[in-house]
Amino acid sequence: MENKRVVLASRPSGWVTEDNFRIETSPIPEPKDGEVLVKNLWLSLDPYMRGRMDDTKSYAAKQEIGEVMIGGTVGEVIESKNPKFTAGEKVLGMYGWQQYGCSNGAGLNKIDASRVPMSAYLGVLGMPGVTAWVGLLDICQPKAGETVVVSAASGAVGSVVGQIARLKACRAVGIAGGGKKCDYVVEELGFDACVDYKAGKLNEDLKAAVPDGIDCYFENVGGEILDAALRRMNPFSRIAVCGLISQYNATEPYGVKTFRSILTNRIRMQGFIVSDRMELWAKALPELIGWVASGKIKYRETVAQGLENAPKAFIGLLKGENFGKQLVKLA
Amino acid sequence: MENKRVVLASRPSGWVTEDNFRIETSPIPEPKDGEVLVKNLWLSLDPYMRGRMDDTKSYAAKQEIGEVMIGGTVGEVIESKNPKFTAGEKVLGMYGWQQYGCSNGAGLNKIDASRVPMSAYLGVLGMPGVTAWVGLLDICQPKAGETVVVSAASGAVGSVVGQIARLKACRAVGIAGGGKKCDYVVEELGFDACVDYKAGKLNEDLKAAVPDGIDCYFENVGGEILDAALRRMNPFSRIAVCGLISQYNATEPYGVKTFRSILTNRIRMQGFIVSDRMELWAKALPELIGWVASGKIKYRETVAQGLENAPKAFIGLLKGENFGKQLVKLA
Repeated sequence: MENKRVVLASRPSGWVTEDNFRIETSPIPEPKDGEVLVKNLWLSLDPYMRGRMDDTKSYAAKQEIGEVMIGGTVGEVIESKNPKFTAGEKVLGMYGWQQYGCSNGAGLNKIDASRVPMSAYLGVLGMPGVTAWVGLLDICQPKAGETVVVSAASGAVGSVVGQIARLKACRAVGIAGGGKKCDYVVEELGFDACVDYKAGKLNEDLKAAVPDGIDCYFENVGGEILDAALRRMNPFSRIAVCGLISQYNATEPYGVKTFRSILTNRIRMQGFIVSDRMELWAKALPELIGWVASGKIKYRETVAQGLENAPKAFIGLLKGENFGKQLVKLA
Repeated sequence: MENKRVVLASRPSGWVTEDNFRIETSPIPEPKDGEVLVKNLWLSLDPYMRGRMDDTKSYAAKQEIGEVMIGGTVGEVIESKNPKFTAGEKVLGMYGWQQYGCSNGAGLNKIDASRVPMSAYLGVLGMPGVTAWVGLLDICQPKAGETVVVSAASGAVGSVVGQIARLKACRAVGIAGGGKKCDYVVEELGFDACVDYKAGKLNEDLKAAVPDGIDCYFENVGGEILDAALRRMNPFSRIAVCGLISQYNATEPYGVKTFRSILTNRIRMQGFIVSDRMELWAKALPELIGWVASGKIKYRETVAQGLENAPKAFIGLLKGENFGKQLVKLA
């Protein structure tokens, strides 16, 4: 038995291709005293990984060539020489794009898969869900009756943002690519409206969807969508900048033309990454578990089968081909 | 005796010209019961006035065609039918581009011209000085040892920002147009460094001036200067967006290319206008008066003589031809 893993073979220039990855095999690690060996069952694919592939300064250390790609994983302890863990326990960790993980257990958290499926801990109850909670409730701080707009609204983060906004008695408006995603956002997730940015009249459609302007904007995309949102921001509105996926593969950065709105509307804007706010995790997670278990927050997953399909699924994620949370089922 | 006044004759498209203004005369108003008549001695010229001349949504009501141009004034009460004011008192008001003002006294404040010259209440002790205080201390919140950068550093606002930064034990770096302004900023105002954006290598020069990056950026200009600053922002840095003077006369808005820095550096950015923060005025003004009276904060004024020269002086201000606070001496 071997450990299959995906390493970064080369840095992309522009769009990621499958050639940027290499699949390798290595022996399954042998846990030493104090260590735990985990068989990874699910791998999370997330837009932030694109930033790590570049050789430029970002909010996290870049990914080195030849190293296993970074990523969140859910798995089962198969051997433990660490008194805190027992074989058979389900755990959430950051073992990356590989079938097995071995570590001293730091940063490894046991999960309760009795009320919700294991995979949810990589999405709605994991980094994406907590990101939505932090960006909306801690940064944007919407008040009842306000209008909340979120881009990439059908994605792992955006879908939770809009549903929390509804739970807080706000008008929730999504921006997503394509009629199918927009229908899902409105009909299944319960947003008040969704704008299809691929329909070719983003500015008009967004204007119509926010008759009272935008009080909170949760940004996952950037580019033209950001400019369209800036045009509709209200005085004293707030913007949480969580992601700029439209820019991650761009060789020329988009020039934001409506920056002046920040001045004239006295907008407060905050870039953030959830790992800077770990102290809020303990507050966010129980709320999210409650909402998911009671059906108040719904979610959808797109599942790729097998580690060897991870590169292709990741490229699809960057192009918006997934629906909801993108996962890889490893076993 | 008549009241000479400058009204908005037409809206500019692009750069303001003298044709956009018209000089008129009208009878000196006769104060009614409860009213006060003021002879304006000094008129303040400020970049925000450019925004009012446009027919677009801004943070304040636009200026109507045919109306007296808006503006802060310092003058002397010459007749009072309001028990709160007495002839001979010096007052700060918003009577606009005209020689006389008459009102019920709302928004009119008596000033003490014994410790500092009257005109300072339109600059370092007026809206520009308080703007600097609010944007730097309330929004950016610099800590000792941090690097503070301010654009339009020799201007009425920027010069105060850098001097307060020094008083708070920060490294103060200015950005200004031309060697003469930069020399003034460093040698007379005591900034640690100043970058001349007209020297043709803004990015390199700014990089050299902020070896530890930028922790607080106070923005008055926008455009390429904003992009250059965004490139050098540190993680968890703060930006106060006070003005974007490079954009006020632009027919095509500049596209901000380095927006991604807001995400990767988790920048907090806040657009603001000091009149939204009137509650801070009472805290800022006594501090500023103390610093100016004791010589810890220095300032310079550029004075145009006579109301008829106000349009020309205002156009010069928008082009950066002034040095420090731009005033018009009315009498």
